[in-house]
Amino acid sequence: MRTLGIDCGSERTGYGVIETDGAEHRMIAAGVIRTSPKWPFEKRLLEIAQGLRRLIGEHAPEAAAVEEVFYSANVKTALKLAHVRGIALLAIAEAGLEMAEYSPLEIKMSVVGYGRAEKRQVQIMAQSLLRLREPIESEDASDALAVAICHATRRAVERLSGERA
Amino acid sequence: MRTLGIDCGSERTGYGVIETDGAEHRMIAAGVIRTSPKWPFEKRLLEIAQGLRRLIGEHAPEAAAVEEVFYSANVKTALKLAHVRGIALLAIAEAGLEMAEYSPLEIKMSVVGYGRAEKRQVQIMAQSLLRLREPIESEDASDALAVAICHATRRAVERLSGERA
Repeated sequence: MRTLGIDCGSERTGYGVIETDGAEHRMIAAGVIRTSPKWPFEKRLLEIAQGLRRLIGEHAPEAAAVEEVFYSANVKTALKLAHVRGIALLAIAEAGLEMAEYSPLEIKMSVVGYGRAEKRQVQIMAQSLLRLREPIESEDASDALAVAICHATRRAVERLSGERA
Repeated sequence: MRTLGIDCGSERTGYGVIETDGAEHRMIAAGVIRTSPKWPFEKRLLEIAQGLRRLIGEHAPEAAAVEEVFYSANVKTALKLAHVRGIALLAIAEAGLEMAEYSPLEIKMSVVGYGRAEKRQVQIMAQSLLRLREPIESEDASDALAVAICHATRRAVERLSGERA
């Protein structure tokens, strides 16, 4: 199964595409869609939409996973993020992908085994789970890979449980 | 000038298209894009995006105006609204329209002349300014018409000031 993980942000939207075979994950692509804070906000949203559509077209994932929206940050930041998240959900719906949302706790538990893990630990564990020689360069990309791993792992477990039932 | 006003909402997104000639406004279209709360959120966003694109294609506005996002409502509602607003801004950017945002205060001042006007008063004044015989059926549509009127009036005033300067 091929899964796209998206880590939404108005300046940097991280993405990661993984291929999962049994319980093994392989990284297909990862990176960051960057937009300039000098641009009008709607142009930045357009840039993010175009970037996500290009990625989906190029890597043809079957599923996409996004972090649940959280309220902890300041409201203004959260509202900006929610605009971007709307764009990500739209790109997923347009492509007809299976869509899943996970809380930061679920993602960290799945990747690090510890719900209060730091970004750095997520980055190291994502690198290890994907057996990458080099560290993942950006935290936005590793957060996106982590949500993809979380979803793919969940699906793999469901499949295994189904087979054994 | 032809202006599209959008009143974002995850269940009901109001829209209004007006044509402004000098200081006179004429209603071209108004209504509501409705989505079912039973649908997954991303499908609702897709439905709103498709509805807005259809409207823009059909009525070819040159400008679009949207209410600024506000924090007063509960955070969960505001975050949902911001997802929808992201979709609206994207549709505007995709079509290359001039984009403007106004606060609820600016919109009410422009249409009713009173910043704390109620929805009902906005509805009556929008009907009057557009010289409609029948009341505007939905508050979402009249809110959308109000933001369009606010923008078109502002532009008309700017043009007149420019000519007299």
